[in-house]
Amino acid sequence: MQLQSLSQDQLQSLEVELAAAYQAFQEKKLSLDLTRGKPSSEQLNLSDALDGILAGNYKAEDGTDCRNYGGLDGLPEIKRLGAAILGIGEDEILAGGNASLTLMYQCVYQAYELGFAGPESAWRHEGKIKMACPVPGYDRHFTICEAFGIEMVPVAMTSDGPDMAELEALVKSDPSIKGVWCVPKYSNPTGIIYSDAVVQAIAELPKVAGKGFLVFWDNAYAVHDLIDQPKALANIMNLAKTAGTEHSIVQFCSTSKITHAGAGVAFLGATNGNLATFKNSLCVSTIGPDKVNQLRHARMLPDMATLESHMQKHAAILKPRFDMVLKYLNDDLAGTGLGNWESPEGGYFISFDTLPGLAKSVVKMAAEAGVKLTPAGATYPYGKDPEDRNIRLAPSVPSLAELETAMQIFVLCVKLASVRQRLSA
Amino acid sequence: MQLQSLSQDQLQSLEVELAAAYQAFQEKKLSLDLTRGKPSSEQLNLSDALDGILAGNYKAEDGTDCRNYGGLDGLPEIKRLGAAILGIGEDEILAGGNASLTLMYQCVYQAYELGFAGPESAWRHEGKIKMACPVPGYDRHFTICEAFGIEMVPVAMTSDGPDMAELEALVKSDPSIKGVWCVPKYSNPTGIIYSDAVVQAIAELPKVAGKGFLVFWDNAYAVHDLIDQPKALANIMNLAKTAGTEHSIVQFCSTSKITHAGAGVAFLGATNGNLATFKNSLCVSTIGPDKVNQLRHARMLPDMATLESHMQKHAAILKPRFDMVLKYLNDDLAGTGLGNWESPEGGYFISFDTLPGLAKSVVKMAAEAGVKLTPAGATYPYGKDPEDRNIRLAPSVPSLAELETAMQIFVLCVKLASVRQRLSA
Repeated sequence: MQLQSLSQDQLQSLEVELAAAYQAFQEKKLSLDLTRGKPSSEQLNLSDALDGILAGNYKAEDGTDCRNYGGLDGLPEIKRLGAAILGIGEDEILAGGNASLTLMYQCVYQAYELGFAGPESAWRHEGKIKMACPVPGYDRHFTICEAFGIEMVPVAMTSDGPDMAELEALVKSDPSIKGVWCVPKYSNPTGIIYSDAVVQAIAELPKVAGKGFLVFWDNAYAVHDLIDQPKALANIMNLAKTAGTEHSIVQFCSTSKITHAGAGVAFLGATNGNLATFKNSLCVSTIGPDKVNQLRHARMLPDMATLESHMQKHAAILKPRFDMVLKYLNDDLAGTGLGNWESPEGGYFISFDTLPGLAKSVVKMAAEAGVKLTPAGATYPYGKDPEDRNIRLAPSVPSLAELETAMQIFVLCVKLASVRQRLSA
Repeated sequence: MQLQSLSQDQLQSLEVELAAAYQAFQEKKLSLDLTRGKPSSEQLNLSDALDGILAGNYKAEDGTDCRNYGGLDGLPEIKRLGAAILGIGEDEILAGGNASLTLMYQCVYQAYELGFAGPESAWRHEGKIKMACPVPGYDRHFTICEAFGIEMVPVAMTSDGPDMAELEALVKSDPSIKGVWCVPKYSNPTGIIYSDAVVQAIAELPKVAGKGFLVFWDNAYAVHDLIDQPKALANIMNLAKTAGTEHSIVQFCSTSKITHAGAGVAFLGATNGNLATFKNSLCVSTIGPDKVNQLRHARMLPDMATLESHMQKHAAILKPRFDMVLKYLNDDLAGTGLGNWESPEGGYFISFDTLPGLAKSVVKMAAEAGVKLTPAGATYPYGKDPEDRNIRLAPSVPSLAELETAMQIFVLCVKLASVRQRLSA
């Protein structure tokens, strides 16, 4: 179906046909939800051994009684796991509480209010501050910027990562741009992996940026592969060390989508110096993270081999869901020109671009037929997708059968909205 | 022994005698620690059933799957427990992560940077801001003030709580005093309980204070009684509601010294309006607390009766330790004029005041005889005890036998330091 090849009459009869199908779905009063990038119950079950795994032994490998106070940066054995996930040294990691989001927020606070290189280096001294945001991106990164009054400057995403020509030109020309948000592997929401060239270029970026520039490397899906031989993400810290920019890289990951989403362990990866600075602030607000929960995680995931085999079980549950989404997109929309999408090999999302100006309509139509989608615009700073195109699909929670129905409705909505747009053009 | 009744010769021979005893202890190369207000292993053992208590059932009473994301203010069943501990409504509580210190920090941040009553109400707009700090007090409260550049103004503690005449005069005369830190039950470190009159006066305090005044009510030892019929603390929120000052009260407590110190659940108690404001900021940095751990706690401590019987087991372990400390103070120092102390009926500390100018010496001497004490001055803002008198004794961790030796050394150091001071006077 190429809409531009259809006559007005053909378009009108197609509209009638699609509208009838749409109404039939409406009458079913469905309630399906593709909004949230969170694990399904089936996935959460994989980690139910966590509760009780200690079997009364609350001692960490260094003899620490995990039940008591203390230990600001976490247990050695869980730091080892975090360091392995991020591919950094065991002295370059901090293991925190249940949310990497909190560590990201605290790092922005550190940079903005306190400075990573002494009080004078705090961003706030420089007046209006900006951050580069590859788009579409993760709304919670944007919310942190908004909370600090940091202006967000969108940068286009490509299949290889941020458009580096655009990003480099931007930070070169505007020293008030103090950082960039990156989800380098299975990017939220487009699902792509940053190419080696892009990671190399990002490692070099602080050299051409203004003072105090930071790369916020949110490696949320570092080990969340759906296929057996996943493409590797280049090691940003190694490249940054070569480039001499290692103090400008702060990395994040967590076990949230490895074990229990709300009850995992979050990690911050940074240079010794940056970690020391960060801990010096952190100790004001906490005596230390929940070491008992860290110990549970270390017992269940003692090494990367165990972690990887655990992640294969997640993949076995998730892969059919991704396949289902992609099957409907490919079967019903490939070659129509009605949308663009990537085919992610990991992560939690499939990102779909409608024809310009249709994302909001499609989300609304889907909702009215019982399929809840992430609000259009949520993947853009300030909730404003300038072309109103991007829709984030999160297929992890619904059952396969629910997902199939949801996708039938989704592609139908895309077609119907596109036909109606053309008719009214 | 009244030093002032002794002749110079008598003092000198006493010094020789005490110094010999002191040296005998030194030769034993002891290593005893009375520094930290943390539970002993024996106490921590009381809660070891937490790990595994869920027996595979991760569902909260409202059906929430605790393993997944969501729920910014915590589970209903754990909020109910927190509300019962603080004596407030179930809609007046937020259950957070493992540290009430974090909630206190976040509340100061809210008041200082963002405002509890709209952005214009943020303390930072008013230039130099101060907080009243009853002394001796808790060093981590002071550290939070220092981090925000909030000047601390000491107020004397009495056996009934802060000296209210002093505190009232202070806040009346200086509208830049924006808050007061209170540990109202088993005060850290003096161990006293605020009298009903003091609690009433504190509930009225915001009426005479400057705009945006907040009472930080850190009820850390709300249920930490050592005796069977403990004195009740008046209910600040009820009194504040009568006084019309309820929006000026923020309360804190946690299970840190109920279950596992580093792996418990912290609570914030405040009015609906303040909680809504707080959550509106909190959601920037977290999706929600560790609900799995909250559920563990709710299963182990389903109601106040269970909690109270659990606390009696703590008391059975702690009471002999407090008795040991008090026995040595009473037997060796009562009536000598060499020190003052309270006899707490709960909490974690016994606070000892030496003769003026001796706290630092006593702590140093004790350390050199193998007994580590909290640094002198730590109980005062900026670490400066103007009279150099206060020493905080934390008897929970050592065994009874260790504690006995430590107290022998402590009273010896107090005597020796006092004699030497008199000799050099």
